[in-house]
Amino acid sequence: MLDAIAGIGRRAASGGYRRFAWSDADMELREWFCGEAESRGMEVTEDGNGNQLAWTHFGSDALLLGSHLDSVPDGGAFDGPLGIVSAFAALDRVPDRDRPVVVANFADEEGARFGIACVGSQLATGALDPAKALGLRDRDGRTLAELMIVHGRDPKATGRAEWLQHVGTAVELHVEQGRHLVHTGDAVGVATAIWPHGRWRLDFCGEANHAGATAMGDRRDPMTAYAATVLAAQRLADDGDTRATFGRLEVEPNGTNAVPSRVTAWLDARAEDQGELEQLVERITAEAQRASEGEETTVELTAESVSPAVEFDVPLRDQLASLLDAPVLPTAAGHDAGVLSKQLPTAMLFVRNPTGVSHSPAEHAEEDDCEAGVDALARVIQELT
Amino acid sequence: MLDAIAGIGRRAASGGYRRFAWSDADMELREWFCGEAESRGMEVTEDGNGNQLAWTHFGSDALLLGSHLDSVPDGGAFDGPLGIVSAFAALDRVPDRDRPVVVANFADEEGARFGIACVGSQLATGALDPAKALGLRDRDGRTLAELMIVHGRDPKATGRAEWLQHVGTAVELHVEQGRHLVHTGDAVGVATAIWPHGRWRLDFCGEANHAGATAMGDRRDPMTAYAATVLAAQRLADDGDTRATFGRLEVEPNGTNAVPSRVTAWLDARAEDQGELEQLVERITAEAQRASEGEETTVELTAESVSPAVEFDVPLRDQLASLLDAPVLPTAAGHDAGVLSKQLPTAMLFVRNPTGVSHSPAEHAEEDDCEAGVDALARVIQELT
Repeated sequence: MLDAIAGIGRRAASGGYRRFAWSDADMELREWFCGEAESRGMEVTEDGNGNQLAWTHFGSDALLLGSHLDSVPDGGAFDGPLGIVSAFAALDRVPDRDRPVVVANFADEEGARFGIACVGSQLATGALDPAKALGLRDRDGRTLAELMIVHGRDPKATGRAEWLQHVGTAVELHVEQGRHLVHTGDAVGVATAIWPHGRWRLDFCGEANHAGATAMGDRRDPMTAYAATVLAAQRLADDGDTRATFGRLEVEPNGTNAVPSRVTAWLDARAEDQGELEQLVERITAEAQRASEGEETTVELTAESVSPAVEFDVPLRDQLASLLDAPVLPTAAGHDAGVLSKQLPTAMLFVRNPTGVSHSPAEHAEEDDCEAGVDALARVIQELT
Repeated sequence: MLDAIAGIGRRAASGGYRRFAWSDADMELREWFCGEAESRGMEVTEDGNGNQLAWTHFGSDALLLGSHLDSVPDGGAFDGPLGIVSAFAALDRVPDRDRPVVVANFADEEGARFGIACVGSQLATGALDPAKALGLRDRDGRTLAELMIVHGRDPKATGRAEWLQHVGTAVELHVEQGRHLVHTGDAVGVATAIWPHGRWRLDFCGEANHAGATAMGDRRDPMTAYAATVLAAQRLADDGDTRATFGRLEVEPNGTNAVPSRVTAWLDARAEDQGELEQLVERITAEAQRASEGEETTVELTAESVSPAVEFDVPLRDQLASLLDAPVLPTAAGHDAGVLSKQLPTAMLFVRNPTGVSHSPAEHAEEDDCEAGVDALARVIQELT
């Protein structure tokens, strides 16, 4: 099944995927999802948030599987699709089930287009305000509402989804984005928790000027304060077992022979607990402010999205770990399962990733480990339905 | 005249200008140039490189005035246009001339579109190879050749221009991009020399990865090496009276939750003499390499354009300084006059800029000082024709 979608949204230059929410690639993946579901006699519904749901049959207390099909810029082939492909494959191995099973494709999990992650699951569970979501703009200035209309969806239908009432348990399978399973030597693991994490925008402002004629001492260059902040953030994150990343940047006017007037940088920060995360972001902000004062530039911090810690349902986690004889492990990556876990018992299975690399074309899982993931998911279906 | 073009290519958001070579704004400015010339009974020709030339009358040993109409991204209103407007205005004040005068609008002086500055004057003088210029690509991947064809120009006509044989002397008036004249208290100055300068591209390469799940110690993040290089460059440039600027940047994949795989940064470096410039770039490169080794990333340096020092014609410079009772001053900014000076006696006049700010919407010259510039240029026409 992964082979069937291997060409969709693939960039030849990097070998990575650009499957942003509501892009042509995303629409093609949605069609593929419908086809896979229909070939299994499943009925596909789509809620007002763009989440696709393939039902073995309608009923109450359904078991929800699945993940997402969208990607980060130049992402890998497994983050998201593996959970959906494995759910379909596992269902093929467990033909007899009393409990309904629903395979979900959640819309815009990565947040690559609008800057907020898990938009589909957050809207469905009421964690994200529809008005706020609809007004989000992509880098070309188009709002989510506009894009939904372009694709024949009704923005007024966004918000809490009725189907959630029919789901009793959720299990998301995902490629591991780290090397815990490499260290334990297991193909499959069960998640304990998701670290609290968030995205903050830092606007460093100075004064554009001529790169040749302006003496170094006469500049108010926001790039200097930005560079100092990057180094400080890495030092501070390295001090604890925390993460700080500057992966996205916009420079104005972005001309070779002009001192920039503005550097807009996005900080992705994560830590094991909320207090540690807040302290990390506070310290990075203080360093950014100190560096800016030295340059006579300014910096402003805006929290774009902050997700609190998620502790997955302990009885379900213990049940699956014992069923699969699998290790339990935490993750610093956010997932739709984290959003769902606030409403219903939810678990996550991870499939080993030999290098730990993710959000990159180098992301990988061995075929045997993918098979082990499908087996594990099949046993979960058997146990829970 | 500046008012007439004040709206062309202006970005409301910044108040700055985006008048890139062969853009709609550039085409509109070219039309305006023709109109101004024709209203004065001048004949406009365009060479195969897109340089526009307005002639009082054809003949030999002409005096060339003028400058350029294109801009950097979010540039100011004076850099370029002031030289052309002042040339027309000065001609209005000196109706009787034996020697032909030609007002030039040089194509793509800023190099904002294709990364190489003074494309028009370099092609006309033979300093730039036509095949190399025609193959230059803008950020959208379009070549100069393609754009010339789109605008009805013949790429095969690029190269050494015949009209240069008819020019005996050149004088470019320009807004000062520094504060020498603020310090001397003069409205107008005469240039001594242009510093050697150039643009180097630094490709920092690492490995894309998940911003949450990848421990800080497991990363190969090219942003770290870039940030360290920015700070080192500023320290090194500040040590001497030299300039080093990182004003343009491209990040791949530029996603908030991904460690970047590549940071491409452009270094603009300038110094008073060639040896000092070479030493500065070598030291910055060494720092970039050292920082990259520490991060297990790589960095590669490519010289995109390097302009040697220009010493303006000494007798002409002394003649104008004495005629105008004006101070002489160096500049760290490149100009078409620097390109022309390799072929014929060339001089530059600078008009005071109260803040020294340039390549920015804040670029400014007082009306009285602009008037003084026109007066000076009129006296130059009187003296030299």
